[in-house]
Amino acid sequence: MCYIFLLNFCLFLMASTLHAQGLLDALSTGKTRVIDLTYPLNSKNAFWPGESYNSFKHEVLASLEKDGVYSGRYSTPEHLGTHMDAPAHFEPNQPTVDKIPLEDLVGLAVVIDVSLKASASGGDPDYRLKVEDITEWEKRHGTIPQRAIVLLYTGWGRRWADYGRYKNADENGALHFPGFSRESALFLSDTRQVKALGIDTLSVDYGLSGDFPVHHIFNSRGRWLLENLANLDKLPPTGATLIVAPIKIEGGSGGQARVWALIRE
Amino acid sequence: MCYIFLLNFCLFLMASTLHAQGLLDALSTGKTRVIDLTYPLNSKNAFWPGESYNSFKHEVLASLEKDGVYSGRYSTPEHLGTHMDAPAHFEPNQPTVDKIPLEDLVGLAVVIDVSLKASASGGDPDYRLKVEDITEWEKRHGTIPQRAIVLLYTGWGRRWADYGRYKNADENGALHFPGFSRESALFLSDTRQVKALGIDTLSVDYGLSGDFPVHHIFNSRGRWLLENLANLDKLPPTGATLIVAPIKIEGGSGGQARVWALIRE
Repeated sequence: MCYIFLLNFCLFLMASTLHAQGLLDALSTGKTRVIDLTYPLNSKNAFWPGESYNSFKHEVLASLEKDGVYSGRYSTPEHLGTHMDAPAHFEPNQPTVDKIPLEDLVGLAVVIDVSLKASASGGDPDYRLKVEDITEWEKRHGTIPQRAIVLLYTGWGRRWADYGRYKNADENGALHFPGFSRESALFLSDTRQVKALGIDTLSVDYGLSGDFPVHHIFNSRGRWLLENLANLDKLPPTGATLIVAPIKIEGGSGGQARVWALIRE
Repeated sequence: MCYIFLLNFCLFLMASTLHAQGLLDALSTGKTRVIDLTYPLNSKNAFWPGESYNSFKHEVLASLEKDGVYSGRYSTPEHLGTHMDAPAHFEPNQPTVDKIPLEDLVGLAVVIDVSLKASASGGDPDYRLKVEDITEWEKRHGTIPQRAIVLLYTGWGRRWADYGRYKNADENGALHFPGFSRESALFLSDTRQVKALGIDTLSVDYGLSGDFPVHHIFNSRGRWLLENLANLDKLPPTGATLIVAPIKIEGGSGGQARVWALIRE
């Protein structure tokens, strides 16, 4: 009897061992599923519509037909397409994009869905995440863990193919798209102590913002932000691990980032 | 007696379970050490000295002092600094840099050190990796596993700060730096079936190459390459896992890549 119990216990532990195979190791066996949260870079990518900002430009330098090798060059604002805002973007004496170590670029993703309130028919394009939205989410999924990366799924990605509809400027040039609120950013940064935010719009601050409180709150605490994320509709509310790989521009305020979500199958 | 045996077996399995904590999970506990194999991008970065290629240029668009926000733009050839050559670089009908999934971008690193032969005092700057160098390495460290990423440490990184010394052109413009040989590339790709190569010079083909056999061998098999890798001197011969994150340029022949080595402590 006791033998059987111990044998079963051993089998349980063996199963645990197999389950504990790392997310990276399990890539080769298909037990880790990957969702790429990065839009491909092309001339239609959305960018922050500031003065002297411009679209992504790619130019062919050599082609297989003419030169036997295919090679190109490109130019882009740092804050175009799927990208990171480094802590130095809005705050002095904070790390630039090249100074963030991998230890800080990997974390558990929490996805809060406000798409019905923000982008569905009858939704409010100026919607800002409320603290109550977060506490509602926590009732269903548990307290947001410290050092999580909180992603806001607004549904705005459905407009990605059309930069005009994506930035959604009115006749006075004011932008209309959803974002985090100041209060939600303070709650997430200081009460929940999350390490970073991400969103599927042009900015973690909503389009009408003039003072960018969400950027200041996170950047002043040495924390980074992700904007124009793809495929947030494909993520579970919890359980994904993000790998965030920003381009290593020396002294850069941010830059294009490759962002993957890894999910244990 | 049998109880004690089973108990010990259980404890062994528990220990295995703990050890099997994934490399990513162990980042937060410091049990995974990270070495960044990426040079920061700046105007001094080495690039392939082809016609109309140019150095990395960064321009400030807005500053904290003047504008309350720090932001920039940059322009660069795809094949500058630490970067990937996608399979489409040298071969038709092969994937461009945006089409390579994470499953193919993570792998075990094997590091072969030819620095004494290639870059030490009295070494040969035109040195090419021999098949015998590989079999010598295997006598000490075991057979190179299938789907490994083979990195050639030539010691050329000591010249990185000086683009002139790094590309090492003679009076006729011929480049002199070490690389893989055609035979070693065939052995690694077809006999050992590795997934990718990387090097700490401008090119996996040595400087004098005119026909780039190493590029053709790997690219024609749908495999990618890494060039201008940093910190190869800090890697163990085996045991590191690489994460390779190339910038997702739609249709790009390659591009700047963030490359990390993760090592279990």
